[in-house]
Amino acid sequence: MVVFVNQFSVHGNAEDFERAFQASSEFMRRQPGFLRHSLVRSTLLPERYVNVAEWEDAASFRRATEHPDFESHVRELHELASSEPHLCVPVLQRGALRGDAEGG
Amino acid sequence: MVVFVNQFSVHGNAEDFERAFQASSEFMRRQPGFLRHSLVRSTLLPERYVNVAEWEDAASFRRATEHPDFESHVRELHELASSEPHLCVPVLQRGALRGDAEGG
Repeated sequence: MVVFVNQFSVHGNAEDFERAFQASSEFMRRQPGFLRHSLVRSTLLPERYVNVAEWEDAASFRRATEHPDFESHVRELHELASSEPHLCVPVLQRGALRGDAEGG
Repeated sequence: MVVFVNQFSVHGNAEDFERAFQASSEFMRRQPGFLRHSLVRSTLLPERYVNVAEWEDAASFRRATEHPDFESHVRELHELASSEPHLCVPVLQRGALRGDAEGG
């Protein structure tokens, strides 16, 4: 699995950005290898959004970005926000540890 | 649910950072309200890490940061990396849509 992290700084209207992002999300979730994504918004800096998307592998992600419809989504988002994208690999993933249970 | 996103830029040794982060993770996952986290590392900028942690609510997260043991973890991480933390709320979360299925 690879994780695509994209931090947006929105200079346009936030509702427009969220609408454009949703259209991009609808495109992405139809691409082979896409697993899931989560778009979150900073509580202190409301112009800051972060998208975290999980893909089966880097090849699937690259293929989606080479799809002919991808460019129009990117263009629309970039009219409303700058972004700092990073294709990442998982290093450490942990769930809650409750009560007396140790290890895991 | 709230999502704590923290982007690290590591100036120290990466292995030391990962070790310090793991100790911090072991502390966090024992705190009430912690759900799960994922630390990922950029493939193009290996000094860049992003931690994405899900908490039940902002109050649980704040309580964990006020725990007396929290400060030592922060200090150790900050000796090895700068960070850009954002407490966020979910805006849009979607899974894959395969084949002819629509909606969801």
